[in-house]
Amino acid sequence: MKIEKVAIVGAGTIGRGWIPLFARAGLRVSVHDTCSDNRDAALAAAKQTLHDLAGFGLVDDPEAVFRLIEPVSSLEAVLDGAQYAQESAPEQVPVQRDILARIDAIADPHAIVSTSCSSLDPIEIFERVGRPERCIVVHPFNPPHLLPLLELLPGPGTSAQTLAATYDFMRLLGQSPVILRKFVPGYVVNRLQAAVVNEAMNLVGQGVISPTDLDMCMTESLGRRWAFIGPFETMDLNADTGIEGYAERYGKSYVELGADMVSDRPWSKEAVSAVVAARRDLVPLEGLGDRRTWRDRQLMQMLVSPLRTHEQSAVVAEYQV
Amino acid sequence: MKIEKVAIVGAGTIGRGWIPLFARAGLRVSVHDTCSDNRDAALAAAKQTLHDLAGFGLVDDPEAVFRLIEPVSSLEAVLDGAQYAQESAPEQVPVQRDILARIDAIADPHAIVSTSCSSLDPIEIFERVGRPERCIVVHPFNPPHLLPLLELLPGPGTSAQTLAATYDFMRLLGQSPVILRKFVPGYVVNRLQAAVVNEAMNLVGQGVISPTDLDMCMTESLGRRWAFIGPFETMDLNADTGIEGYAERYGKSYVELGADMVSDRPWSKEAVSAVVAARRDLVPLEGLGDRRTWRDRQLMQMLVSPLRTHEQSAVVAEYQV
Repeated sequence: MKIEKVAIVGAGTIGRGWIPLFARAGLRVSVHDTCSDNRDAALAAAKQTLHDLAGFGLVDDPEAVFRLIEPVSSLEAVLDGAQYAQESAPEQVPVQRDILARIDAIADPHAIVSTSCSSLDPIEIFERVGRPERCIVVHPFNPPHLLPLLELLPGPGTSAQTLAATYDFMRLLGQSPVILRKFVPGYVVNRLQAAVVNEAMNLVGQGVISPTDLDMCMTESLGRRWAFIGPFETMDLNADTGIEGYAERYGKSYVELGADMVSDRPWSKEAVSAVVAARRDLVPLEGLGDRRTWRDRQLMQMLVSPLRTHEQSAVVAEYQV
Repeated sequence: MKIEKVAIVGAGTIGRGWIPLFARAGLRVSVHDTCSDNRDAALAAAKQTLHDLAGFGLVDDPEAVFRLIEPVSSLEAVLDGAQYAQESAPEQVPVQRDILARIDAIADPHAIVSTSCSSLDPIEIFERVGRPERCIVVHPFNPPHLLPLLELLPGPGTSAQTLAATYDFMRLLGQSPVILRKFVPGYVVNRLQAAVVNEAMNLVGQGVISPTDLDMCMTESLGRRWAFIGPFETMDLNADTGIEGYAERYGKSYVELGADMVSDRPWSKEAVSAVVAARRDLVPLEGLGDRRTWRDRQLMQMLVSPLRTHEQSAVVAEYQV
């Protein structure tokens, strides 16, 4: 089935992030939110984003793309004629269970039903759908038009066909989907982030380093590499004998460092206060909006820069079902 | 004291990385290694690096810069007239203790004596120096002309003046020094890296995700942000109420994820084998050299790109002693 119309169900921070991505690809995008103010704000945000993207040459005609977006007032209307639904309602099991069951009941029987969930177990949220084979978690990073990664997490009933079709669809949109083979709390990316953040809080709390210097530790070393080579490739390139030699030589010391960390201790009040003070010293609360704009422009710059090539062909081959 | 000549003591992988950095700044750089082949290879590598940097406009006249580098045959010769010594001998306590004591005995009494150590405790390695006040750890990331971060770790006897002078000197060279206020195993950066790598191995070992997809999780989301904003700023920009609101709302879930991780378990054989197989499938061992060249060119591109500005002035002010 060719996807020509996408339904956005829920247009809060997460849901609205999807809109420019689909519209930019020439798809019709229908938008519904139980709060019409939310929906209207989402359209205004989409317009702004499309113009920003045009400034970087990432969209040709922002107004023409914007005309593909249609606000609607009911779940029936948003799903009508859609071959793909992206649901981004609040992330609570009862809410997700209910809205996914309703979408499943109304949508075209062949439509893909996906949820933007970032942490819930598919077993729980897909419990009441009639056609679990076409349901899947597609977890975006905000905003998806700037951060290409998507975590695809099938439920126990999701068909291989739905997984493959969703994967291919997202690749066509220019995204970088990865497939999670089983549920773990936090999925993958948020676990990696938590590993860093918990240790960062721990180091600040212990008085080892200032929060600003901690941030610099990331941006001036690790982060520069991880922007285009992942942690495994980083190690692979750091030994003449590749990752096999690296693991043999340094594996033990990584585990010893791990043993020295305490990852389950609540962030100390002192650590949080130090981080807050350092951040507010650099950027006052009222300056965060401008700084976010700056961040997004940096990310756009990265998208258009010659940096980065990755081995997509091998990855795609692996997932052909 | 003005620094005009730098002594490179030990010209292995780490020691040689420093050479282009000092020479590019117009300093005379004297190079010694107990193995003369090592020293000669270091000079050849420096020449190549200077030409690579010239290709990106980061060095004007590579041959003129190269003429500032002088290979010598003794510890006395390398230290003669040097105001700064960078020692990069093998990282073992007895070796470091011995070589630092010898450098301290020979060097100009006002020279700064620094070691590239990446993990040892300054209390142990500076134990036998006569002038602990001028000794300091300056841990680089390889190669330092591409990764600006330096971890500065004073010992208990290091003077505030030595710390400030080393900090300022490194800033003048264009580096991004941070100050560690106390010793912890692995210092800061390698702990953050270990936190990510241990969890990455754990996720691959559990069969949650493929190694190639795990790497993509980093490069297509977290890494793109961390290349120019650190983990604290990332959180600060992710909530309207800044990091204070973010910590209140999400702190508990970070700690819950941390509690779900097992950071002290040895990397499983299955995980390492899966990572090796995935890497070798993408890049054969004999292709790693070319891939390293590509990585370094990406890092040079990042250095010259308009990306990134950080709040150096505030940081410098904080450290004026």
